[in-house]
Amino acid sequence: MDIRLGDNQYGKAETRLVRVDRHPDRHEVTDLNVSTALSGDLAATHLTGDNSGVLPTDTQKNTVYAFARDGVGEIEDFALRLATHFVTNTPTIRRARVKIEQYTWERRGHHSFVRGTGTRTTTATFDGTVRTVVSGVDDLVVMNTTGSEFHGFHKDAYTTLPETNDRILATALTARWRHESADNLDWAESHRETTKHLLEAFADTHSLSLQQTLYAMGERALRHRDELVEVRLALPNKHHFLVDLSPFELDNPGEVFHAADRPYGLIEGSVVRDGATDPGLAWW
Amino acid sequence: MDIRLGDNQYGKAETRLVRVDRHPDRHEVTDLNVSTALSGDLAATHLTGDNSGVLPTDTQKNTVYAFARDGVGEIEDFALRLATHFVTNTPTIRRARVKIEQYTWERRGHHSFVRGTGTRTTTATFDGTVRTVVSGVDDLVVMNTTGSEFHGFHKDAYTTLPETNDRILATALTARWRHESADNLDWAESHRETTKHLLEAFADTHSLSLQQTLYAMGERALRHRDELVEVRLALPNKHHFLVDLSPFELDNPGEVFHAADRPYGLIEGSVVRDGATDPGLAWW
Amino acid sequence: MDIRLGDNQYGKAETRLVRVDRHPDRHEVTDLNVSTALSGDLAATHLTGDNSGVLPTDTQKNTVYAFARDGVGEIEDFALRLATHFVTNTPTIRRARVKIEQYTWERRGHHSFVRGTGTRTTTATFDGTVRTVVSGVDDLVVMNTTGSEFHGFHKDAYTTLPETNDRILATALTARWRHESADNLDWAESHRETTKHLLEAFADTHSLSLQQTLYAMGERALRHRDELVEVRLALPNKHHFLVDLSPFELDNPGEVFHAADRPYGLIEGSVVRDGATDPGLAWW
Amino acid sequence: MDIRLGDNQYGKAETRLVRVDRHPDRHEVTDLNVSTALSGDLAATHLTGDNSGVLPTDTQKNTVYAFARDGVGEIEDFALRLATHFVTNTPTIRRARVKIEQYTWERRGHHSFVRGTGTRTTTATFDGTVRTVVSGVDDLVVMNTTGSEFHGFHKDAYTTLPETNDRILATALTARWRHESADNLDWAESHRETTKHLLEAFADTHSLSLQQTLYAMGERALRHRDELVEVRLALPNKHHFLVDLSPFELDNPGEVFHAADRPYGLIEGSVVRDGATDPGLAWW
Repeated sequence: MDIRLGDNQYGKAETRLVRVDRHPDRHEVTDLNVSTALSGDLAATHLTGDNSGVLPTDTQKNTVYAFARDGVGEIEDFALRLATHFVTNTPTIRRARVKIEQYTWERRGHHSFVRGTGTRTTTATFDGTVRTVVSGVDDLVVMNTTGSEFHGFHKDAYTTLPETNDRILATALTARWRHESADNLDWAESHRETTKHLLEAFADTHSLSLQQTLYAMGERALRHRDELVEVRLALPNKHHFLVDLSPFELDNPGEVFHAADRPYGLIEGSVVRDGATDPGLAWW
Repeated sequence: MDIRLGDNQYGKAETRLVRVDRHPDRHEVTDLNVSTALSGDLAATHLTGDNSGVLPTDTQKNTVYAFARDGVGEIEDFALRLATHFVTNTPTIRRARVKIEQYTWERRGHHSFVRGTGTRTTTATFDGTVRTVVSGVDDLVVMNTTGSEFHGFHKDAYTTLPETNDRILATALTARWRHESADNLDWAESHRETTKHLLEAFADTHSLSLQQTLYAMGERALRHRDELVEVRLALPNKHHFLVDLSPFELDNPGEVFHAADRPYGLIEGSVVRDGATDPGLAWW
Repeated sequence: MDIRLGDNQYGKAETRLVRVDRHPDRHEVTDLNVSTALSGDLAATHLTGDNSGVLPTDTQKNTVYAFARDGVGEIEDFALRLATHFVTNTPTIRRARVKIEQYTWERRGHHSFVRGTGTRTTTATFDGTVRTVVSGVDDLVVMNTTGSEFHGFHKDAYTTLPETNDRILATALTARWRHESADNLDWAESHRETTKHLLEAFADTHSLSLQQTLYAMGERALRHRDELVEVRLALPNKHHFLVDLSPFELDNPGEVFHAADRPYGLIEGSVVRDGATDPGLAWW
Repeated sequence: MDIRLGDNQYGKAETRLVRVDRHPDRHEVTDLNVSTALSGDLAATHLTGDNSGVLPTDTQKNTVYAFARDGVGEIEDFALRLATHFVTNTPTIRRARVKIEQYTWERRGHHSFVRGTGTRTTTATFDGTVRTVVSGVDDLVVMNTTGSEFHGFHKDAYTTLPETNDRILATALTARWRHESADNLDWAESHRETTKHLLEAFADTHSLSLQQTLYAMGERALRHRDELVEVRLALPNKHHFLVDLSPFELDNPGEVFHAADRPYGLIEGSVVRDGATDPGLAWW
């Protein structure tokens, strides 16, 4: 029969690891959500249920916890360490992808913390030869209350949107940036500075479209951070509609808005450095 | 027939209001989720569909937006203003409850903001005579990595939990505090200081049970804030289980934890000032 | 100091229990989410951290699983059995509340199932003397595409809603019904029939307001089910707005709607049988 | 500067469209969530904010509603109609992707409905030349209470999982299937039959691994449905752990389980017909 197995991967998703580093003067907390995905010579389990090449997802979870015993460090290093381990030590596994989300905690005392906003992310891949690292940030919600226009757009028979010279621009930032190499970087500094540049570009850019803001954000990050070769952004346009108060004999000079849920615009794009290294499996 | 209408209320839930105050030197943003609930002589609409006494929920939404035109101010004042309006100006309405959630935004520039953590809440009620205000905070996630014990508990045939002298204590704080009166308070200061005392008590208390922490938090707030007469807390015990690494010939001296989702302990309690004013409809 | 402990309870929330009954001709699956909450002489743990009266929430979870070994049966019976156990066998515990959600599975084979819609719920309470049982249904989403009007309502300066003789009426049903006694009922039949009457009343009632529909639903259930004394309903009005297609030179005779998320109307009410037994802690 | 725009698209996400077809003998309801994404000559808006080539996302939403005036029909046809329109009638647009989720409603009367389980999906793409259609199903939760084993797997130093000859196999099905062509199919029958074959294969397959079940499901669909050339499945392994009741002197012969949330196994794979047409942008 002319039916065959195509691409496939398997792993353990969302292993919730919290590590405490107990320094004498203070505790440090590392709060992670780790997902592993492995690929390789796995036809047997699909076709006949022969699992001799399958490293159980339970083992993948155990490995995450066991590796954390020696310390986690930066999530990029931890992800690379895990990805390398799975490919190197499991005969059937040819590719590993490890995705980590790190939640933010703000210190409130020697051993007391309050959870903050924004999630730091990374995805490390290893195919036996090449390592790639894509880092990013999720769920960072930002808003400009002015400095955003939208006009001069293409109009067809279904266009009713009025042009505007002043609107609220709000979005929940999902950003990913690819590093030129997976070699020893100061991952913490790179993440902190890249995030700072993205947020500053969002705040600084006088925006004629959310696309323009997107490009400005990606370009700003690439311009300042030589270790990056590509920035991908997904920006939902969280619409804020000016409420018509005229039925109540009130004006509304850009002050009272309805924050809508759905539908929302969704602007996605990539900004790339020319001559960048081949992405390989980075975005796989 | 011996069947009758019992308690009832109706209103518009989750009106999403964003107000921008455009000062020359900076913008201020107020981001609210407003829910109104009205009660009164509403038997006719239930029994016969005669709506002559029903102020539409759409009108309630419009009122929220229209009232915001003059400024919102502190959410307690805005909620009281709305509740008073509905009862005073609608012939059939005898009681109004207005609940507001306020989302946090941190300034990043003249008109640029990043959303923060923790939601400030208030519920104002008015029955034509008495006004009550309960304020609070939602979704403030806190963690102590040590300073928490749990032992000496009652054991029965179903008890397997080992006693511990050192565990992680983590919770997502839902707190509500009732004010002695609804008269002009510095609501902003009251909220900021009460939240501070709750968080400090969480961080400071060497905890033998989450119940002890709960009481210490409520007591701390009441002790410092004379305007409060009762604090109610709901504290999910977000369990962090020490991972058994012994199968891998590793010890685990309080460093590697699994953060569990469900089930979770749920500790709920109230701390009250003796001789407090009657709560009336405050918790209704 | 004049500060004291007020009402309090504690327990284990959301214990996810799945029980399989392995009959020769078929398997049966019971899929539950069980939450327990205990109350009693618990001042010591709050005030001093003395836990000698505290049955750990972990033990409560264990008890849920151990009791399931003998079979679960109807969730009302299982909840009563657990509530009675906690109060009877724990010296400090004076009241227990056990809340259970049961997820629906539809049979697809001897041992194969597909999850269905609507969640059956129950809350059983026991205070050492009186047992009460409130059952219900969550998340049953229903829609009438006609047979709903809304007009003749009270108008004030903030009213802009047009009157309508034909609208979509859609809601997500949350219903709770209190039984006259906790004694041996055919709980399965009672739940099935009550749900049927609620849905039929929703479908049958020509509605002049969602309040009228609410009352009709509660009354229908009480009229047909003698074992019930009160029905409480919470009905979000999931607004469907007719889209204005006139800019595109199209009419819209009640055919094309926008389904909105927020805000939504929220109609809550109770329908009661006269001379009903005292609710006691039933709704506690 | 050597920085440039990479891949990009923009559109309106989650337009919630409900259409009522008012037949004399009964109403029909079509409940959709429509997302559009356009791509083409959009460098200007990114680089300079020149929006002359941008069809606003608001217009895309309007188009969805306006096109529904003539009837929706099967979602595959509606998605193709919209995708073709955007590419054909907007000078700058070279590719369009339209993704639709359709929610299930079960009839309860002439014009009354209850929402059911499982979401039907489709994604249609058009690049000016080639049309592709991928259909699927989301959120269909299925469980086998026996007939599932897992043993003979690869073991390393981190493996602690015991082998089992009998476990619960539960998953939430996300399936996508690619059609050989976008030409007139009986989409409704194709969807209904493909879903049936997937569910039957899940129920029938004695499973030695979830991968084996995945392949069996895809193969079954391809074997029976000639119009399909590829099936992709993502199957979270919703773990059900047998509870150890031995501390309570109880056995547990496969009857009492804890349903865990996280982590979960995640098995993803594709089953392909040899010699299938080129996927082009189908999975883009």
